[in-house]
Amino acid sequence: MVTEEEIRDALRRVIDPELGRNIVELGMVRGIGLADGEVNLTLALTTLACPSKDRIISDIKSAIRALDGALIVNVKLVEMSAEERAKIVGEQQVKQYVAEPFNEINHVIAVMSGKGGVGKSSVAALLAIALRKQGERVGLLDADITGPSIPRMLGLHELPGTSPLGMLPAVSPGGVKVMSINLLLAQEDEAVIWRGPLISSAIRQFWGDVLWDRLDTLVIDLPPGTSDATLTVMQSIPLNGVLLVTSPQDLAGMVVRKAARMAQLLNIPIIGLLENMSYVQCPDCGRQIEAFGPSRAEETARALGVPLLGRIPLDPELARRCDSGEVESYPVDAFAPLAATISVLVPDVKSKPQF
Amino acid sequence: MVTEEEIRDALRRVIDPELGRNIVELGMVRGIGLADGEVNLTLALTTLACPSKDRIISDIKSAIRALDGALIVNVKLVEMSAEERAKIVGEQQVKQYVAEPFNEINHVIAVMSGKGGVGKSSVAALLAIALRKQGERVGLLDADITGPSIPRMLGLHELPGTSPLGMLPAVSPGGVKVMSINLLLAQEDEAVIWRGPLISSAIRQFWGDVLWDRLDTLVIDLPPGTSDATLTVMQSIPLNGVLLVTSPQDLAGMVVRKAARMAQLLNIPIIGLLENMSYVQCPDCGRQIEAFGPSRAEETARALGVPLLGRIPLDPELARRCDSGEVESYPVDAFAPLAATISVLVPDVKSKPQF
Repeated sequence: MVTEEEIRDALRRVIDPELGRNIVELGMVRGIGLADGEVNLTLALTTLACPSKDRIISDIKSAIRALDGALIVNVKLVEMSAEERAKIVGEQQVKQYVAEPFNEINHVIAVMSGKGGVGKSSVAALLAIALRKQGERVGLLDADITGPSIPRMLGLHELPGTSPLGMLPAVSPGGVKVMSINLLLAQEDEAVIWRGPLISSAIRQFWGDVLWDRLDTLVIDLPPGTSDATLTVMQSIPLNGVLLVTSPQDLAGMVVRKAARMAQLLNIPIIGLLENMSYVQCPDCGRQIEAFGPSRAEETARALGVPLLGRIPLDPELARRCDSGEVESYPVDAFAPLAATISVLVPDVKSKPQF
Repeated sequence: MVTEEEIRDALRRVIDPELGRNIVELGMVRGIGLADGEVNLTLALTTLACPSKDRIISDIKSAIRALDGALIVNVKLVEMSAEERAKIVGEQQVKQYVAEPFNEINHVIAVMSGKGGVGKSSVAALLAIALRKQGERVGLLDADITGPSIPRMLGLHELPGTSPLGMLPAVSPGGVKVMSINLLLAQEDEAVIWRGPLISSAIRQFWGDVLWDRLDTLVIDLPPGTSDATLTVMQSIPLNGVLLVTSPQDLAGMVVRKAARMAQLLNIPIIGLLENMSYVQCPDCGRQIEAFGPSRAEETARALGVPLLGRIPLDPELARRCDSGEVESYPVDAFAPLAATISVLVPDVKSKPQF
């Protein structure tokens, strides 16, 4: 006959993939009832919208059935109170973050697409540069751990320094503070073959263990996809909003809509949509060639109910300066309106999202 | 005083993130010695190159120190024998796969880039179509779970069927068998907000729970990045080789080199490099515009020691047909040489990689 104690012990093997600790230690197991071959268990989640919910429940059932395969396991879900949630998140932060209490960051904006190769990184870099040229104190956090582009674009290669309060960001010639995994690798083309938990922990460290100091705006360059990296940024960093980047292809639009839905599900405001690579201008005859097909940006923006902030052409000169680490010398006039738009929009999204 | 038994029990809380089971159950804990406040432990890894190595060791130390914070923990690493490894992998497969024993797949080729938006999916689709037109039985596994493009390109929307032996792939009008997460979603732009373990398990199911039946070639479309999805494909599916896709930007080249190093580290042969989006042809004056800057493909191929298989222009017509689900009607003549090259190369990489 299985005892409640044995069940509790078995549940110590169930790890919350989000928090990396077992559900008993986290105080998520609220009550265990045993009667007539049935186990009735109450599980408190940080949020009922927890994306790992199904996995945790399935792990609980496996762990209990490993004790006695005939047991029927019923899991009742409840949601933690704000205090309980704060305590867990607080413990995580006390454990992990060194520099965060010393940072003072006014606005955090993530550049997101869902789709790869639409120019998120160049938009993020140009936005940071434009804000910097307006006199803001600006940081740029490269959350793309497996495909980081930011240091190369800004010509940064040196290992960042450290202080007793945390890692120090690298600083671009123009004065943008930068943190990226590629600053920490011996060679920029070294592969980072990490599964999700390590990716997430690197991103959390870039937020909490880097001494950003005082910033008006921190721009975060997200990787493609709606998995670990994006989820960690959205759940662990108090974003003021996301800027969506798309390309003219409707296929890209479809994936960008997935990203937008993710932001909506997690209550992160969408600042607007920006279409990149809209056309290529022929240097000989001036013809505007729609290399990725006709634009669908207005359609996509309307479907998402967000403003279309602009359409940027595909410019070989931008590609060249990104490759050679001179993106700061790219004439950002074309982007100043964008930077202005963002500055106007930011106060509207100042209210931090609810967790 | 802590006992060996207590240590063993504590280690049951350490989960191998790869295999999703605890290290004691997996037989990875080989010997526990206790003397003078020190714990000496031998840990057998499936491979010493295990990317989760550091995480497992750190979890072991935390688990033991939770019993007694003063304990010094020394972990000695050894590698499992081929038989031990096969047993673990075998158990995993027996647990998970339904259809795999009924499938007979001659060649498996993954289309990879590391970088997003360089056209992996269109290359994968065109390759599958070209092989199919040569009379091969071809499958196309979309391993991009958060940004899947394949069903849209081939105009596939219906839910795939099931049989007692597993899920049935969808079949394109031209006869390519397809499996993708987007075939399973109610709406194609629904977001899949999953962390790594769920992504990996979906991919393993697409390999082992889908009744592919007999195939000459299975083409796998990989997502960007070198994290969970790519790692799972490389570790769980017996790849004959990978086809690398890049774009002219050196920034893309840098990320593609990361992908190539990952393949090399995991002993997966690289079939060759293909440059996509090499130039745009002006429809008015015929000028070839290098929209992403000058090509670096030869340089990248040489640095990696792999053949350069070709350079493909950026064609608005291809974008249009991908958007409208008519990629099968795209004139693949331009790709027939590529398909022929692959057919020639495949026998050379027939020897399965060593695990």
